[in-house]
Amino acid sequence: MIIICNRQDLLKAVGTVSKAVSIRTTMPILEDILLEAGGETLTLLGNDLELGIQTSIDAVVKEEGSIAVNARMFSEIIRRLPDEDVKLSTGSDSHNMTIDCARSTFTVATLPGDDFPRLPEVASEHQIMISQMVLRDMIGQTIFSIAPENSGRPILTGELMDVRDGYLYLVAVDGFRISMRRTKVQSDQNFKVTVPGKALTEINKILETEEDSVATISFTGKHALFTMNNTIVLTRLLEGQFLNYQRNLSMDFSSKVIVDKQELLDSVDRAALISRESKNSPIRLDIQDKTMLITSNAENGTAHEEVPIELEGNGLTIAFNPKYYLDALKAVSDEKIEILYSSALTPCIIQATEGEDYKYFILPIRLHN
Amino acid sequence: MIIICNRQDLLKAVGTVSKAVSIRTTMPILEDILLEAGGETLTLLGNDLELGIQTSIDAVVKEEGSIAVNARMFSEIIRRLPDEDVKLSTGSDSHNMTIDCARSTFTVATLPGDDFPRLPEVASEHQIMISQMVLRDMIGQTIFSIAPENSGRPILTGELMDVRDGYLYLVAVDGFRISMRRTKVQSDQNFKVTVPGKALTEINKILETEEDSVATISFTGKHALFTMNNTIVLTRLLEGQFLNYQRNLSMDFSSKVIVDKQELLDSVDRAALISRESKNSPIRLDIQDKTMLITSNAENGTAHEEVPIELEGNGLTIAFNPKYYLDALKAVSDEKIEILYSSALTPCIIQATEGEDYKYFILPIRLHN
Repeated sequence: MIIICNRQDLLKAVGTVSKAVSIRTTMPILEDILLEAGGETLTLLGNDLELGIQTSIDAVVKEEGSIAVNARMFSEIIRRLPDEDVKLSTGSDSHNMTIDCARSTFTVATLPGDDFPRLPEVASEHQIMISQMVLRDMIGQTIFSIAPENSGRPILTGELMDVRDGYLYLVAVDGFRISMRRTKVQSDQNFKVTVPGKALTEINKILETEEDSVATISFTGKHALFTMNNTIVLTRLLEGQFLNYQRNLSMDFSSKVIVDKQELLDSVDRAALISRESKNSPIRLDIQDKTMLITSNAENGTAHEEVPIELEGNGLTIAFNPKYYLDALKAVSDEKIEILYSSALTPCIIQATEGEDYKYFILPIRLHN
Repeated sequence: MIIICNRQDLLKAVGTVSKAVSIRTTMPILEDILLEAGGETLTLLGNDLELGIQTSIDAVVKEEGSIAVNARMFSEIIRRLPDEDVKLSTGSDSHNMTIDCARSTFTVATLPGDDFPRLPEVASEHQIMISQMVLRDMIGQTIFSIAPENSGRPILTGELMDVRDGYLYLVAVDGFRISMRRTKVQSDQNFKVTVPGKALTEINKILETEEDSVATISFTGKHALFTMNNTIVLTRLLEGQFLNYQRNLSMDFSSKVIVDKQELLDSVDRAALISRESKNSPIRLDIQDKTMLITSNAENGTAHEEVPIELEGNGLTIAFNPKYYLDALKAVSDEKIEILYSSALTPCIIQATEGEDYKYFILPIRLHN
């Protein structure tokens, strides 16, 4: 393989595919990335067998071929090279590759490209298209409430992608809360799959923020394939039955508070300072006619906050883990939000004052006093 | 104590004195800061008994008094308050303090101010004045080569401040290299003291970057007192005999290389990538008539760099720990620097092409081949 390419393009591509490279593995080749030259293109691939990321850049290909090189080492070298064209060339034995750029020459150990695991061929059963910017927002606004890896409920370490009646619902559940964002999509069929949280986290970094960039997502029984411009991400799906979140999100509530999102966020954030000191201690919301009092108590202090609200229905005293409120409020960009509730022992929902494009369902904490 | 002050001023002051607060200590009060109200001033003090930092801000003092409050908690609260005036008030028993700001009220546990260790009175024996900006540069350009805490040579964990013949020399030595920066100061007497590295690191964060801000440094047998605007830093001095660095820095050299600093820095940085993989492997400099070749070899690859130079004297092959070169080159702002050397087994010095205001003395590594 002998190619010449632009350093900036190469650096960006290496950064992208490196997100699928294993850090610790018993198969050393999974710490590599595959470089494959053909036509007028250099294709790069990282693959930890759960998640594969492939991208391609323009290159002058003088000799076709493929090679696997340590991702970290290669990326560190390319990052430090001066901003001139980079030449990559391998000898006939594939045991090493020479990197030439300006007055710098590196030789690094490599493995034959044929030893590297390619992405499996997948046959698409369903396909949707979605604005990259919207998908990026949706992931960012829900991913924080997936269950941790050690939760004992593997299915909840991913997010449900539920395509139903012209909407894509993206849903994350950790047992104490449900975070849901939806957007309109074109699809004749209804279907649902669960995508691993790690894959969504990495996809989120690749998604572009330009208004008109589109991502295509293809689903098979076992995989989802995200195509974004020159980059594809293939992830395994999680198997099992996801929580029936629809029932929870369509509950009826007797009361409603409308509040300035930033004021509530700042006040909960301050009150949580006191509760954080004694681990997991709840903050208490006293919902009154025109004011919400937010208080917390711990051995080292107390906090007392007042936030003006509009109330429809009944006042109430209710307690929450402040982290769940903070995560939801930070994810929302609206100025005003509404909180729906019925009693101190039943869940509340945070949502937009208009429409139902996001819902944060949060279980309360029982107060001991 | 009852006072009202500006939140921004308070936040900055708390941040400053918190740098002298113990993180883990068997004396819980050392995790506190002292707040002391008198006249029209609130004075704040952090003191871990090695290092004390005191600063003061304007305040409306309604009732004089003093109190010790947990530094971390207090600082987190002030950081999150809205940007309005802050009122601090303590009850008569000193067991807690109320923090009021807009619609937020906090109560935090406190201890009586009299329990907090004040700074000792120190009688100044020597005094110098120096531009804060210059002192900041001098510390930043030398502190990286103090010996680590576990080096077994406590005196070298500090920097020597050597006031001699109208200059302040700031010197750091770790056994493999010497870093020296000097500047002109007014002083009738010659004297030297060793200031702990930690104190200089914290002082560096307090020093201002404005051209005309001046720091006054007073020395006693046991302490140094740095005064910068409203802030004073008192540090214990290290006891013992510092290395006689002058002898090393005034050696004669037979050859000299003049080189572009940034080019050398970038090339060593790249070559070090290979050597970093196999720990502590040296980079090799082949100094030739118009070119320096920089090479490194490890089991996973090789690097080869060429840097144009001007040579006066003899060519040479010599090896170094690349970290020592990188630290020195990063600290220097000159475009061109010179490297002085005599042989592959004796030290080299990196210095300015004009003047002797900084010198980096670096021991070579013996090559095994």
